[in-house]
Amino acid sequence: MGSIFGKIFRVSTFGESHGNAVGCIIDGCPSMLEITQEEIQRDLDKRRPGQNALTTQRNETDQCEILSGVFEGKTLGTPICIVVKNKDQHSQDYDEIAKCWRPSHADFTYDMKYGLRDYRGGGRSSARETIGRVAAGAVAKKFLGDNVKITAWVESVHAISMPLRKDTPTQEEIESSPVRCPHVQTSAKMEEFIKKAKAEGDSLGGVIRCRIEGLPAGLGEPVFDRFEAELAKAMLSIPASKGFEIGSGFASTRMFGSQHNDIFALDENGKPTTLTNNAGGVLGGMTTSRPVEFRVAFKPTATIAKEQKTLSRELKETTVVGKGRHDPCVLPRAVPIVEAMAALVCADTLLIQRTARI
Amino acid sequence: MGSIFGKIFRVSTFGESHGNAVGCIIDGCPSMLEITQEEIQRDLDKRRPGQNALTTQRNETDQCEILSGVFEGKTLGTPICIVVKNKDQHSQDYDEIAKCWRPSHADFTYDMKYGLRDYRGGGRSSARETIGRVAAGAVAKKFLGDNVKITAWVESVHAISMPLRKDTPTQEEIESSPVRCPHVQTSAKMEEFIKKAKAEGDSLGGVIRCRIEGLPAGLGEPVFDRFEAELAKAMLSIPASKGFEIGSGFASTRMFGSQHNDIFALDENGKPTTLTNNAGGVLGGMTTSRPVEFRVAFKPTATIAKEQKTLSRELKETTVVGKGRHDPCVLPRAVPIVEAMAALVCADTLLIQRTARI
Amino acid sequence: MGSIFGKIFRVSTFGESHGNAVGCIIDGCPSMLEITQEEIQRDLDKRRPGQNALTTQRNETDQCEILSGVFEGKTLGTPICIVVKNKDQHSQDYDEIAKCWRPSHADFTYDMKYGLRDYRGGGRSSARETIGRVAAGAVAKKFLGDNVKITAWVESVHAISMPLRKDTPTQEEIESSPVRCPHVQTSAKMEEFIKKAKAEGDSLGGVIRCRIEGLPAGLGEPVFDRFEAELAKAMLSIPASKGFEIGSGFASTRMFGSQHNDIFALDENGKPTTLTNNAGGVLGGMTTSRPVEFRVAFKPTATIAKEQKTLSRELKETTVVGKGRHDPCVLPRAVPIVEAMAALVCADTLLIQRTARI
Amino acid sequence: MGSIFGKIFRVSTFGESHGNAVGCIIDGCPSMLEITQEEIQRDLDKRRPGQNALTTQRNETDQCEILSGVFEGKTLGTPICIVVKNKDQHSQDYDEIAKCWRPSHADFTYDMKYGLRDYRGGGRSSARETIGRVAAGAVAKKFLGDNVKITAWVESVHAISMPLRKDTPTQEEIESSPVRCPHVQTSAKMEEFIKKAKAEGDSLGGVIRCRIEGLPAGLGEPVFDRFEAELAKAMLSIPASKGFEIGSGFASTRMFGSQHNDIFALDENGKPTTLTNNAGGVLGGMTTSRPVEFRVAFKPTATIAKEQKTLSRELKETTVVGKGRHDPCVLPRAVPIVEAMAALVCADTLLIQRTARI
Repeated sequence: MGSIFGKIFRVSTFGESHGNAVGCIIDGCPSMLEITQEEIQRDLDKRRPGQNALTTQRNETDQCEILSGVFEGKTLGTPICIVVKNKDQHSQDYDEIAKCWRPSHADFTYDMKYGLRDYRGGGRSSARETIGRVAAGAVAKKFLGDNVKITAWVESVHAISMPLRKDTPTQEEIESSPVRCPHVQTSAKMEEFIKKAKAEGDSLGGVIRCRIEGLPAGLGEPVFDRFEAELAKAMLSIPASKGFEIGSGFASTRMFGSQHNDIFALDENGKPTTLTNNAGGVLGGMTTSRPVEFRVAFKPTATIAKEQKTLSRELKETTVVGKGRHDPCVLPRAVPIVEAMAALVCADTLLIQRTARI
Repeated sequence: MGSIFGKIFRVSTFGESHGNAVGCIIDGCPSMLEITQEEIQRDLDKRRPGQNALTTQRNETDQCEILSGVFEGKTLGTPICIVVKNKDQHSQDYDEIAKCWRPSHADFTYDMKYGLRDYRGGGRSSARETIGRVAAGAVAKKFLGDNVKITAWVESVHAISMPLRKDTPTQEEIESSPVRCPHVQTSAKMEEFIKKAKAEGDSLGGVIRCRIEGLPAGLGEPVFDRFEAELAKAMLSIPASKGFEIGSGFASTRMFGSQHNDIFALDENGKPTTLTNNAGGVLGGMTTSRPVEFRVAFKPTATIAKEQKTLSRELKETTVVGKGRHDPCVLPRAVPIVEAMAALVCADTLLIQRTARI
Repeated sequence: MGSIFGKIFRVSTFGESHGNAVGCIIDGCPSMLEITQEEIQRDLDKRRPGQNALTTQRNETDQCEILSGVFEGKTLGTPICIVVKNKDQHSQDYDEIAKCWRPSHADFTYDMKYGLRDYRGGGRSSARETIGRVAAGAVAKKFLGDNVKITAWVESVHAISMPLRKDTPTQEEIESSPVRCPHVQTSAKMEEFIKKAKAEGDSLGGVIRCRIEGLPAGLGEPVFDRFEAELAKAMLSIPASKGFEIGSGFASTRMFGSQHNDIFALDENGKPTTLTNNAGGVLGGMTTSRPVEFRVAFKPTATIAKEQKTLSRELKETTVVGKGRHDPCVLPRAVPIVEAMAALVCADTLLIQRTARI
Repeated sequence: MGSIFGKIFRVSTFGESHGNAVGCIIDGCPSMLEITQEEIQRDLDKRRPGQNALTTQRNETDQCEILSGVFEGKTLGTPICIVVKNKDQHSQDYDEIAKCWRPSHADFTYDMKYGLRDYRGGGRSSARETIGRVAAGAVAKKFLGDNVKITAWVESVHAISMPLRKDTPTQEEIESSPVRCPHVQTSAKMEEFIKKAKAEGDSLGGVIRCRIEGLPAGLGEPVFDRFEAELAKAMLSIPASKGFEIGSGFASTRMFGSQHNDIFALDENGKPTTLTNNAGGVLGGMTTSRPVEFRVAFKPTATIAKEQKTLSRELKETTVVGKGRHDPCVLPRAVPIVEAMAALVCADTLLIQRTARI
């Protein structure tokens, strides 16, 4: 249970890190959508390892193949299955961890829940699981079209934070930074700091900010399936995420209502808008048509090259040193995953929105 | 859509603030559970308005009635319907807001989504909607039993914050504070500050901390339906919530992996535990058996007694002053709601957990 | 689990026969739909007991009350809760069956599944459970509007069968028959036969035919959620139903493909249709725009006034004689239930259909 | 939408007849289940084409590959993806039907719903879609274990019917018949009749009977998700099925209650049973522990070699002759599909059953 996301645009993902393949089925994608393997590949390429010195050196091209649901360049309305074969498995790196629980990894909880786990490369808890999400997200983005723009970027790594960006950075700005931080000086500092942490066998966390522009008002379903609730679930489902805030978020708790309230007014086109957007684009669980803006906290990568105490599966004290290949900081590669999950939420809520009125 | 929560222990809520009644149906509550109307009432009493000077003076006794699903003191396994009649409606207070959108309220988005709304008392977006949640949560808590303890309390109001509490406060400590802050001096400051804000026609937000103790390891379903993802959705579905963090949360982003990782070790009973709990009781989306600990941010109440500019439904500029009865700070009454939603997540995941192994 | 029906237009029903009330919540009904309590009551009146000599003499007016979701005569898009209080309970009639399992009733299986049951009047397995369905069905019908016509009638009782009716009987024809069989002579024979069976302490079954006209082509979701699959589930969920067939049904098995195939041709308006409708209005799980036609088999009422052997809950041999009030033949009162369930399937599939294309 | 089956044991299928591959993901299969590719292949081999002269000569070995979810011979509790590549596509056979709607096929309704279709080999409406079901069913059967026995066989083809079989035929008896009819003389007649129909360019339908033995009492969820309702949906979701009946089914409608009621008594082990099983193993939507017995009607194959009138997509009158490869009678190959769908229902309800009591 737990590997299906969405109510109409439903994504089932599958795959372990060192199994045969990873991927997804999208059930409920509307028909007549033009989509190519290349468009999906483009997003997968942003997520794939080995892009630069900051990421794991696992060498995967992550070539996707569409097995179904697309015919003559268009979606059929039938399930779309997308598969990526695993290639560069170094399973021998993981023999040791078969027998113990790496600190702050999911080894222990998989053992507790299921009584066994595929320990090779983290199995299902590996970041490779997110390939299915990114592939599905690429289809969702295509469905959203050019009117909806989802932009995520790294806002902070450890204590290094970029200035608040009021306008939305371009994809070019973001992609030109190896850290995916669209502020040149901050990006350079982050890069240096990540390399230093890596050299010391340590790891780092940080915050990703994401902005969704172009959504119509009214998306999201009160009371449980609020737009921000679905987003929160989507973001907390990403490996290593520890927090979510929408709009003013935790900072709102230190404001007065008279400061925080967003005043309604007409925009230049005579349409209703709000002068501020502390709401982060949602009121009462539904979008306001103002940008949806949220932040996601990621903890430092659990795998570190330092020796750590731990327990073996037989409850003996032992030590473990992170081998395998891993990112010292997941933030840069988490950017396309945040965008993909946001796209899934948008696609699903937009489809459900069609049923709101008679 | 959107008013059903859970997969097995499924709660449907209904009701508008000034309609005939509010309540819920619980479908999927296991049979043979002893439950009384009084036990449900006890939790509703914590949530109901008019408890003290800090809360809305709407005078509702919120007496619940069980309409089905319980027989001779035990659950039948059939749907449990619980209803609370609305009594003290002052609908005339709301005539004005029928025609305009209150800043940072859901008036605008309900109009956008549905084309109409029940403007009396906020309709479905009123905090009265949470009565169904608290009633269902009371049943869920009974199912969880004494071994699982869910404790929420107010940690901060505006900039007034209590010291970090390592041990878990008792219900008595929490309930003896009108703010539900189990730190006497801080509680007094908060109370004073809330009264001051109220006197000035303003409102306040804050943070609730919640700890769940006694859960077995392995609850939660990777990859999308992680325990913390379900919690995040549950919490962001509560009116006025703006953020969620689990364990070290946003603070984790400024730690090194070597600091953040929780080392496995044996506890005094020879069982595996972790020396620290930065994880907040979850790894890889599953519980570790350590306390699940999270924080929820609530914005300042949108209704304020100060005059604010806004738009009418006809897009004319107008002003609005908060009438009706409302809380200057939702935090104290949000405590039982946070607990209820946490209980729903626990009950549902515990039931699903029974299907994890052959 | 199991008391929620539908994916978008989701109906949760609740209630035991001798509990406080029965009813439903509809989550996902579109907003702006005009609906009154009277329209719902009209359908409930068709279902309620005591209509004539052929039905149980339990005296229930089954007055419904809308608790939420409707404002100034229109649906709000929020959950619609409809409740009917139970009034004429004669629970003392059922003391005996608390201790034994009535043959072909659900007493045994409720005990096996849940370990207890509300034995009074059959509890949740009573036909009173269908009140929530009929109430929700009335709302669904209103949503379907005048263009979609759902007509069910009794085609056979025991071996007494009316001639195949090619045109659709009017509601007046059906309602003028106490058996709801729109063929005067057959109806008279059925009535007489039912009275005779009742006099002999016995019971009867029969077949209901239902026709849905006016549906657009394309409703239903391949491959699992086919229109006819959803209908089949809906019908087999009605108490006492034992079979379902769509179009030519079981008779199709004795036809050649060359006889059975429905030839496509243009109708008088130049639109595509089929010359015959052996398909029963569905192909590949989707509607063709031709009438959807199906039949549902109902077994003879399990409650009979004859003494029958059975077992007590303590596994002792005993006997039981049907007391309480019951229908000697469920068919007449099952007609509005079949229509209601058909309406729920239509409403849900029509809403989902809005998501089929970009 | 519509390609996911089940609530806990959830199966997503994908694939078009002439696309790259067909298959499924199973989300929610419990961990620790021993399963091999060979066991899945065994069931696929029963379904695959080209087994004998009675089935389509499409030459597919239908070799399956497990892509995920199984590790060292055991299920991990994570999604199990199983894929079968399509190999022997003769897509050129289908150029003609790209432009017209074959009578009683889904061509028309796919066009109506989605605005396009993959016409090659029927696309998603092809029987190849059922490969994913059979693969998932094989895993479900393994989960059910030896105690639960699901046996389906062909009871009638056209008007040729075997005598009612009280005991359950063995798999050997069934498999030794090319028609999968475990009555030697009837099987021979059926075989001859199918060959004759094929020679004449015609097609046949028939009835499959299925018996499920060894289920515990109490499976199935009142009121909507009754065991027989889920079965009915499962069976009506199979291509070409037109009817479903449980136990006495349509025949029950011509019985008196006093004849139909199944009397409770003790079996030789002192356990409660019923003397007869008109119920077909279910009461009130839950299993009784007696065999679940049901019948499924299949229409004659829509593809026939005779010329038929029809319409083109441009609404011109035209004719079509069935080319491509197809079965003159789907019954023999539908047997493993009926078993697979029954297994999916059993696995899902057994898992849900674990949540019935505290």
